[in-house]
Amino acid sequence: MSFSDTDFLDRVNWSEHPLVAAVAQDHESGKVLMLAWMNREALAETVRTGEAVYWSRSRKRLWRKGEESGHVQKVREIRLDCDSDALVLQVEQVGGIACHTGRERCFYRRLEDGQWVETDAVLKDPGTIYKG
Amino acid sequence: MSFSDTDFLDRVNWSEHPLVAAVAQDHESGKVLMLAWMNREALAETVRTGEAVYWSRSRKRLWRKGEESGHVQKVREIRLDCDSDALVLQVEQVGGIACHTGRERCFYRRLEDGQWVETDAVLKDPGTIYKG
Repeated sequence: MSFSDTDFLDRVNWSEHPLVAAVAQDHESGKVLMLAWMNREALAETVRTGEAVYWSRSRKRLWRKGEESGHVQKVREIRLDCDSDALVLQVEQVGGIACHTGRERCFYRRLEDGQWVETDAVLKDPGTIYKG
Repeated sequence: MSFSDTDFLDRVNWSEHPLVAAVAQDHESGKVLMLAWMNREALAETVRTGEAVYWSRSRKRLWRKGEESGHVQKVREIRLDCDSDALVLQVEQVGGIACHTGRERCFYRRLEDGQWVETDAVLKDPGTIYKG
């Protein structure tokens, strides 16, 4: 990218929190699919490629969403919040599965009468999603 | 709360991250209004009162959303993600303003051709929202 192209990256408040929260929302249904993290490089790569790239806190490396599963997220829109430290992505979820458990979304549990109740079915056996 | 009532709190992964991200989504429009943080007490208070209570990272104290502005969030649903460290709240946003800038949502900037562009109007002058 040229110098001027990185201006939008400079406007994110990385200094206070090197990782910002990124919410992925299905661009059609409006369902919140997952919440992940981005550092500056992840956001730059997301914009450059048009597909969601996060920072994996557990693996401590860039995580190209769908790199193993094929369940990539095509990014339709990116929004930044008032404090410049949170993002919302409108995505097209390839395969219809965002969660590593094989469900549509990671938020598959709802609080009902003081208990977390699973409301979403497993659409695909994770064993068949992740071969490695 | 009685002992058994706190079981749902124990199932959130506070140990790794004492603050979990909480996404507030408008229960009707599906718009993501804001992203804030909860510690265990904030989640307990949210459930107890039925209104969103966050942990303010800047003020380092519980933040009863709307305590100054009156723009409280009535919580219709709470979801937990697969890693048990992120929440999505379906809320009814009283006053129709979630953002301290007087806008409907904090995510009022959209990335367009490499620039963050304000897409949402200020609905109410913040000076008239916050008297203190």
